Amino acid sequence: MSGGPERRDAPLADEPIAIVCGGGSLPLAVADAATKRGRRVVMLAVRGFADPQVERFRCHWIGLGQLGRVFKLLRAEACRDIVFIGGMLRPALGTLRLDWTAVRALPRVVRAFRGGDDHLLVSIARLFEDAGFRLVGAHEVAPDLLLPEGALGTHTPNERDRADIEHGLALLSALGPFDVGQAVVVAGRHVIAVEAAEGTDRMLERVAALRRDGRIRSEFGRGVLVKAPKPKQDQRFDLPSIGPPTIAGLAKAGLAGLAATAGATFVAEPAELLRAAEAAGVFVIGTPSHGAAA
Amino acid sequence: MSGGPERRDAPLADEPIAIVCGGGSLPLAVADAATKRGRRVVMLAVRGFADPQVERFRCHWIGLGQLGRVFKLLRAEACRDIVFIGGMLRPALGTLRLDWTAVRALPRVVRAFRGGDDHLLVSIARLFEDAGFRLVGAHEVAPDLLLPEGALGTHTPNERDRADIEHGLALLSALGPFDVGQAVVVAGRHVIAVEAAEGTDRMLERVAALRRDGRIRSEFGRGVLVKAPKPKQDQRFDLPSIGPPTIAGLAKAGLAGLAATAGATFVAEPAELLRAAEAAGVFVIGTPSHGAAA
Repeated sequence: MSGGPERRDAPLADEPIAIVCGGGSLPLAVADAATKRGRRVVMLAVRGFADPQVERFRCHWIGLGQLGRVFKLLRAEACRDIVFIGGMLRPALGTLRLDWTAVRALPRVVRAFRGGDDHLLVSIARLFEDAGFRLVGAHEVAPDLLLPEGALGTHTPNERDRADIEHGLALLSALGPFDVGQAVVVAGRHVIAVEAAEGTDRMLERVAALRRDGRIRSEFGRGVLVKAPKPKQDQRFDLPSIGPPTIAGLAKAGLAGLAATAGATFVAEPAELLRAAEAAGVFVIGTPSHGAAA
Repeated sequence: MSGGPERRDAPLADEPIAIVCGGGSLPLAVADAATKRGRRVVMLAVRGFADPQVERFRCHWIGLGQLGRVFKLLRAEACRDIVFIGGMLRPALGTLRLDWTAVRALPRVVRAFRGGDDHLLVSIARLFEDAGFRLVGAHEVAPDLLLPEGALGTHTPNERDRADIEHGLALLSALGPFDVGQAVVVAGRHVIAVEAAEGTDRMLERVAALRRDGRIRSEFGRGVLVKAPKPKQDQRFDLPSIGPPTIAGLAKAGLAGLAATAGATFVAEPAELLRAAEAAGVFVIGTPSHGAAA
């Protein structure tokens, strides 16, 4: 067994880092960024979620619930650092095929599943930590992917947009203790949509539909998408992310732009996102983190 | 001009009450209830929103923005008490055809449109009050339509449902200062959906879609819809309402039931709602108002 406690303080830069890959393009972006910084990566691609392109890197496919297999793979690959990144829907516990290691951990997992997302993720992190592994935030491995402070392109929020951003940030902060979504849409200080289980893309589709049906009073090109990490969020998991599809959704919803927390928001494909924002005439701004960022 | 200040303290029971009718069946239910209590009613049916059936009662059709015409009608009908009831989408200010009285009130209306819904409604109420009219809550005219405390039918929430109800009420209370929606869906203490501009029916459709797509981990028949008036809501406007379509939405969304504030939630068609709830096997419970009710 590699990765025993005696190696805890040894330098880790020579060890490969394991990237547990959920859906979307972020796992690839994180792997590319880590590689560029000279770190070897091993992809643990979650079946049903990960993009097959993750096979560009050294890669093993894993099933949710195969905790014992994951531990074995990590030890065989001499990985101690693990990054969790990419979208993964919360599965119903009954649908998981659990291996024996997972079954032994079941009481803890069941307890975890009763709480909100934060609670679930923190519990999973503890399972890995107790087995001698170290959970690392993707933002530590790939800091270049984090949204910087200020406007990204040539478009900037006007005074009304800034008032909407402030309103949205205050609302997200009030929602914090409830482990709800990480995004809201505000137009003319009127809250149009609050994200919960549906995710940002679907919320933006809803705003577009509300506008088509005349249920939003503000004109086309008004209103902002505001994203922020939950106040007590463990930043090693589930930091908000934006990408080119977010810009497409914004444009269809007739919004003026998006504000997200600088240093605590992933941009999956920065160049492509910027190009899309410039073409659509929407702003993308990194707001100060007020201590929320790492 | 009838309705001058000298009549402010005169008994009003003989005067007809004006009901400004938005959409849905609630205006009819309120008119029926007031009539049963011996009060004459005059319907002011808002074009594009009110159900044509309101013509069962003495009725005038009005356009949004026809403030002068409404004042004139109210005086001609010798109405001093006015009830606003029924759904009305917040129109874009630019789409209103304003008459001269409305145009003179425009600076106040524009200011009102900048705030949230509460602010808009309170401003409109003031316009009427300044003209010598009195805004009365539909709950005062038709108290029989208010949801009573406790379970309505034979189905009751279990312990898990009660925990979800508590969680939902706490979330709605945190949302209060933001003038957002009045409803959330919670399952296993996990917030599935938060209502904003889309309204309760569409939120329930979204929950049904999330369930179809496997994006909700709780089993079918788990989870609750929780509704409550906003903490500082002027109860003369826009109290939450439920009706048979709410039950149909609940059932499709696979929820266990709904909890709404006793004494501060309208039930448009109580008998029909109860029949639908019993048939669908869902509970409907009136929660204590904690001082929120009238």
